[in-house]
Amino acid sequence: MPFDPNSLTYDEKGLIPAIAQDPDGEILMMAWMNAESVAATLETGRVTYWSRSRQSFWIKGETSGHTQELIEMRVDCDRDCLLLIVRQTGPACHTNRRSCFYTAIRGGEEVELMKPES
Amino acid sequence: MPFDPNSLTYDEKGLIPAIAQDPDGEILMMAWMNAESVAATLETGRVTYWSRSRQSFWIKGETSGHTQELIEMRVDCDRDCLLLIVRQTGPACHTNRRSCFYTAIRGGEEVELMKPES
Repeated sequence: MPFDPNSLTYDEKGLIPAIAQDPDGEILMMAWMNAESVAATLETGRVTYWSRSRQSFWIKGETSGHTQELIEMRVDCDRDCLLLIVRQTGPACHTNRRSCFYTAIRGGEEVELMKPES
Repeated sequence: MPFDPNSLTYDEKGLIPAIAQDPDGEILMMAWMNAESVAATLETGRVTYWSRSRQSFWIKGETSGHTQELIEMRVDCDRDCLLLIVRQTGPACHTNRRSCFYTAIRGGEEVELMKPES
């Protein structure tokens, strides 16, 4: 079946969450896309989110160089969430860490799992 | 630092997305939590979402038996997304597949990656 970005279920703001995972299974980040950024990501192979704070397209790594090259896009059963398998260059997180999920809750305490890359 | 579920950033409906991943790295599903379900998940060790369609707590597997036992909860840099490392019993998806992300986009076509478990 041909894929149509408009066949996805977007929220009231026209957005869908997109989880970025590297090929080894590490979850790097979660951000948002609209139908146009889904289409652009598939067309260019460069992961392109929608920035809710800037209200504009956000080609990941365009300014930082920390790009995400799309390996594969997946859709969930409800068509309201995307999984992006990506080749990440440099850290994915704006804090310069590999992953945004660097804080664990252990025994009721917050524990830092990784340091910023130098 | 002690963890407080109220320190997370929830959307205008009081919800935060939560990604469930098994210890081998497979992403199983994405659903939503509110502050009370975050607290309940940490307290009981049984993953408890908030069902947007039913507007009620959703203890994963309570009716199906396909439970999720929490191994670890992680918080992202913006504190607006959760990652749950879980031990999944049976399929995570309501279609009886291991993961909800069973559809890939390849060459513009939708491809089914896994079949329902029997």
